[in-house]
Amino acid sequence: MRTGIATVCLSGTLREKMQACAVAGFDGIEIFEQDLVTSSLSPEDVRKLAADLGLTLDLYQPFRDFDSVPEDLLASNLRRADAKFRLMSRLGMDTMLLCSNVGTATIDDDELRAAQLSRLADLAGEYGVKVAYEALAWGKYVSDYEHAHRLVDMVDHPHLGTCLDSFHILSRGWDTAPIEAFDPAKIFFVQVADAPKLTMDVLSWSRHYRVFPGEGQFDLAKFMGHVVRAGYTGPVSLEVFNDVFRQSDVERTAVDAMRSLIWLEEQSARWLEANPAAAESGAAGTAARRRYPMELATLPRVAEPAGFNFAEVRAGDTAGLETLLSQLGFAFNGRHRTKNVQLWTMGRARLIINEEPAAGQQAAAAAAISTAISPAISALGFDVDSPVIAAARAQQLKAPAVPRKSQANEEVFQGFAAPDSTEIFLCQGSPDGTAAWVGEFGEPHEPGNARPPVVAAGGTAPAAGPVAGAVIDHVNLAQPWQHFDEAVLFYTSALALEPQPYAEVASPTGLVRSQVMLTEDRGVRLVLNLAPLLQQEAAGTKEPGESGTGHRRTYQEHVAFAVTDLVATARAARDRGLDFLQIPANYYEDLDARFALDPDFLATLRELNLLYDRDADGEFLHFYTATVGSVFFEMVERRGAYDGYGAPNAPVRHAVQYDHLHQLTRSS
Amino acid sequence: MRTGIATVCLSGTLREKMQACAVAGFDGIEIFEQDLVTSSLSPEDVRKLAADLGLTLDLYQPFRDFDSVPEDLLASNLRRADAKFRLMSRLGMDTMLLCSNVGTATIDDDELRAAQLSRLADLAGEYGVKVAYEALAWGKYVSDYEHAHRLVDMVDHPHLGTCLDSFHILSRGWDTAPIEAFDPAKIFFVQVADAPKLTMDVLSWSRHYRVFPGEGQFDLAKFMGHVVRAGYTGPVSLEVFNDVFRQSDVERTAVDAMRSLIWLEEQSARWLEANPAAAESGAAGTAARRRYPMELATLPRVAEPAGFNFAEVRAGDTAGLETLLSQLGFAFNGRHRTKNVQLWTMGRARLIINEEPAAGQQAAAAAAISTAISPAISALGFDVDSPVIAAARAQQLKAPAVPRKSQANEEVFQGFAAPDSTEIFLCQGSPDGTAAWVGEFGEPHEPGNARPPVVAAGGTAPAAGPVAGAVIDHVNLAQPWQHFDEAVLFYTSALALEPQPYAEVASPTGLVRSQVMLTEDRGVRLVLNLAPLLQQEAAGTKEPGESGTGHRRTYQEHVAFAVTDLVATARAARDRGLDFLQIPANYYEDLDARFALDPDFLATLRELNLLYDRDADGEFLHFYTATVGSVFFEMVERRGAYDGYGAPNAPVRHAVQYDHLHQLTRSS
Repeated sequence: MRTGIATVCLSGTLREKMQACAVAGFDGIEIFEQDLVTSSLSPEDVRKLAADLGLTLDLYQPFRDFDSVPEDLLASNLRRADAKFRLMSRLGMDTMLLCSNVGTATIDDDELRAAQLSRLADLAGEYGVKVAYEALAWGKYVSDYEHAHRLVDMVDHPHLGTCLDSFHILSRGWDTAPIEAFDPAKIFFVQVADAPKLTMDVLSWSRHYRVFPGEGQFDLAKFMGHVVRAGYTGPVSLEVFNDVFRQSDVERTAVDAMRSLIWLEEQSARWLEANPAAAESGAAGTAARRRYPMELATLPRVAEPAGFNFAEVRAGDTAGLETLLSQLGFAFNGRHRTKNVQLWTMGRARLIINEEPAAGQQAAAAAAISTAISPAISALGFDVDSPVIAAARAQQLKAPAVPRKSQANEEVFQGFAAPDSTEIFLCQGSPDGTAAWVGEFGEPHEPGNARPPVVAAGGTAPAAGPVAGAVIDHVNLAQPWQHFDEAVLFYTSALALEPQPYAEVASPTGLVRSQVMLTEDRGVRLVLNLAPLLQQEAAGTKEPGESGTGHRRTYQEHVAFAVTDLVATARAARDRGLDFLQIPANYYEDLDARFALDPDFLATLRELNLLYDRDADGEFLHFYTATVGSVFFEMVERRGAYDGYGAPNAPVRHAVQYDHLHQLTRSS
Repeated sequence: MRTGIATVCLSGTLREKMQACAVAGFDGIEIFEQDLVTSSLSPEDVRKLAADLGLTLDLYQPFRDFDSVPEDLLASNLRRADAKFRLMSRLGMDTMLLCSNVGTATIDDDELRAAQLSRLADLAGEYGVKVAYEALAWGKYVSDYEHAHRLVDMVDHPHLGTCLDSFHILSRGWDTAPIEAFDPAKIFFVQVADAPKLTMDVLSWSRHYRVFPGEGQFDLAKFMGHVVRAGYTGPVSLEVFNDVFRQSDVERTAVDAMRSLIWLEEQSARWLEANPAAAESGAAGTAARRRYPMELATLPRVAEPAGFNFAEVRAGDTAGLETLLSQLGFAFNGRHRTKNVQLWTMGRARLIINEEPAAGQQAAAAAAISTAISPAISALGFDVDSPVIAAARAQQLKAPAVPRKSQANEEVFQGFAAPDSTEIFLCQGSPDGTAAWVGEFGEPHEPGNARPPVVAAGGTAPAAGPVAGAVIDHVNLAQPWQHFDEAVLFYTSALALEPQPYAEVASPTGLVRSQVMLTEDRGVRLVLNLAPLLQQEAAGTKEPGESGTGHRRTYQEHVAFAVTDLVATARAARDRGLDFLQIPANYYEDLDARFALDPDFLATLRELNLLYDRDADGEFLHFYTATVGSVFFEMVERRGAYDGYGAPNAPVRHAVQYDHLHQLTRSS
């Protein structure tokens, strides 16, 4: 599949955009006219730069408001087109995008339109240019891709074809199956864009909210399947107008864009496999996969991860974390034999405290920085069938690898960096949920390093009891607003997590958008939180360079552990002196008004600072610890088939955490 | 008019919200349930705090999903209501908002609904509580305020009335005139919210995009006029769900909110005057203004400003500005006799260069800071009929006054700070456009201060010629995203400027939202630019404390001057060595393709780096200077009735300025 991208998707100057596209590995680009008009590069400069960068110049766009006009305006439009065709000659470009008329069309007559398009095609022919006619979803008379294609058929001119743009087709809900019957020689260009399903006017939706494939809700694999089956072999090119991408780092956005096409290519191949055409579904069709003129490269195929292998918190001063974990009932499993790392476990849940500075921090004064690192979630391990294959897939999806030093005889983790710089490790899963690398722990790192007590004073060893079967239930990560869509695609494509419809939760500093990413069996639940802007500004989100350190991220994140008896777990933790997040009395009154709870049960909830939710599927009990650095922990118990996260309680947590943070600020 | 506001409009904890409401001067508040549930304040604490702050607790809200349900669910809903009525007793509150059912309604039967509402009213009566029933715009069966009111009439119960919310009514486009016929005793509450006219689903629109009155496009004065004429005398309370306000400084937002009600009160009084009811329009009616039960306070009334009196740039090092102004053809009018301030004029346009540190900067090391101030627009003067009356109006609208020291015999400027901290001064206009205070200039500030040359070497004195009739055409100010809506209301209410539909302009770092604020005769054109977020983060917008200094604001802003012969002005400036913003050759090719310009004219445009636009009303020629600090200048010529700002050319300016800035960054 030949990959392309329109320059309008990216920030920066035309030169910066082109360089970023080349670095990201695109085959070609569409030149968005405004990017050329505002550039100090001459057309000849652009042509040479593209050649030097190994980029083809696939489409000049857009040419607007041509057809369905009176003769005098047509003459002016042809003159305008002539100037652009001349310009394209200088650029060495042979395909122009023509949008159906929005602004100046006054005559709704297909015969007239065809005649006018024919005259444009004649003129284009003189310059060797092909015109790709596209029905804009809000075109005045032509807004349906089949209508545009009928006009192309009527004109039947070698220099007039159609451009299929997934947004203009799928935003209107048109069926894409008819594409298969199109003459591939008449499909001059294909543009792809995804979008969240929004109920707003289609023009605003298109201009602001398009995203790269895999970041929205359109069925692009099906669209592409039809296109491929039609026999199209030209570029598949991204045209995404997005308010955030226009502002974001150009090289990073280009990589995100490329990742989306690599993923789409694979998804399209899978769709074709899963949906054989009528002619292919006979004995012969099922025997061998049908070959299409467009070659679709595939990726190493991986199953969704079975669960979390571990979660890791990086910290300079670990005392606060150790106290919390001990009080929660975690067992200290010792230090790693070669690294300055602690292992804590509860049932099958493993939590690592990493005292080593991150890769980016090692250069200058590692020791000095290390103690300054405020505790923050730095890495997540996922159980996969084959770490090597999964890592190969992630690599092909342009996930940046992260180095993790290891000694001989130690398990090597395949790791890469998520868009928010959290390190993601692919680990060998096991049927019983154990992990071989645990054997590397046990000895103190160095003689001088005392081992923390396994349980806090007064507690009992928690090997059995309510936490015996504990697992990591979910992990909640804060996302910088510039990289939120990128993160959704990243986890979708590299880890096969499925994005769910997002929720919005009120906090004292604004609405928090909460995006759950799931595996089908709920073995992995990852929650991406898009914090309000001012909160992010205050916290200072991680920068691309700050790989996995999280030390500037004071927005609170957490790891949640599921147990089978939350009340007993909470009681034990309270007896060990745990600093619970204190839940206001008003909450319990409201809970009672809503659910009419048994008075004893309500008293227990109140006594232990437990939160509660209930829906048609089951019940949810949970509590939170105080925050250390930017990390806190949650303990949950799922009853019945409850599948949520206690969203109605989230505002309570945010408000209490905010209040606590402000009290700290005021008292300091 | 009794003023109120729902706590959900504001950020922070319930205590912070209540304190901010008291400081801003509200009479009462609505308690949004979630704010209480998440608060550590007990109901008794809240009651006492409100009393201490002098706030009435006007409405407990919302109570949801009550009516149109089967009997078993009704019983549960009544139990839930009972708990809330008990809570309200503890709070000392007597009115509850009941929203029409969205989630659980299954029976569409007005008789049943009325019976169920009657039972709720009976229960409410036991607690002395009044229930205000509101038709949500997206209610399942009841979504129309007249329908809700009919139900209230059917029930005819002293404890059941209606709540009128302007958003739910105006978002659906309902006629508001029928409100006049409502029995005022049945209108228990009135909520007001404005909104931009968006074409999206009404729920999302309501939850994210409501704004305070005057910041959107609803005709709230008319709505309020009908409410007042109905005889309503209760609170007029703001209920605004807005993603930005939820994040912004709570005290500041509360003041913005209060300003919107003060303005709405005046607008409502004016609407009633201008739209007499049928019964009032006879001889008796016109003779005396009809009195309504609700008293509407009015503000000092001012005409729109006639023009800009001056623009002021604050700068530590003034050399760059002086050079630009000289080269443009400005005349140096000397220094102020008591202040460290220069006056430059071109025709009737006056530009001040202020070398004094701003008020907030004087404390510590004024001299040191002063030289560090990068040139930035710091103040604007407006010509008004009566500065004293206009200042009184602004003061009543809670515009913060700014001190400006003056000596005896000097004109005193009435000044206040705009939301972006630009200082706004109200000046005495004159029929011939002159300003008396100009006489205070002429002498060097102190002996050591050499006067800059009136024109640069090689130039000629520009007293006459193409710039003789020059005026300030428009001023373009960058707005922090947190204060954009506030700025629109500020200029609307305090200066009687009229907001126009906004435009969006592409820049290399994102879309720039451009909001024009006008007077009817175009004497004042103010353009508020909402820059992309990342651009703002990089620039560092002015903080509330940094009154008028602008020294952290590196986002570019400008003053545009209109002349009668731009080509001659540009030629003269070029001869004086002006550093023009360099326009790419590609722009002129595109211009020719679009407009088919006379080749000589096109050559002139190209030669002088002029930009061009044309529409049905006329033509627009303009050019830009290079940027000094965060300031650049624009010279424009309007031909015919052209009323725009060359918006199609704005992306060219942004791209070239971006490129230039990056070249500077790269070379430094």
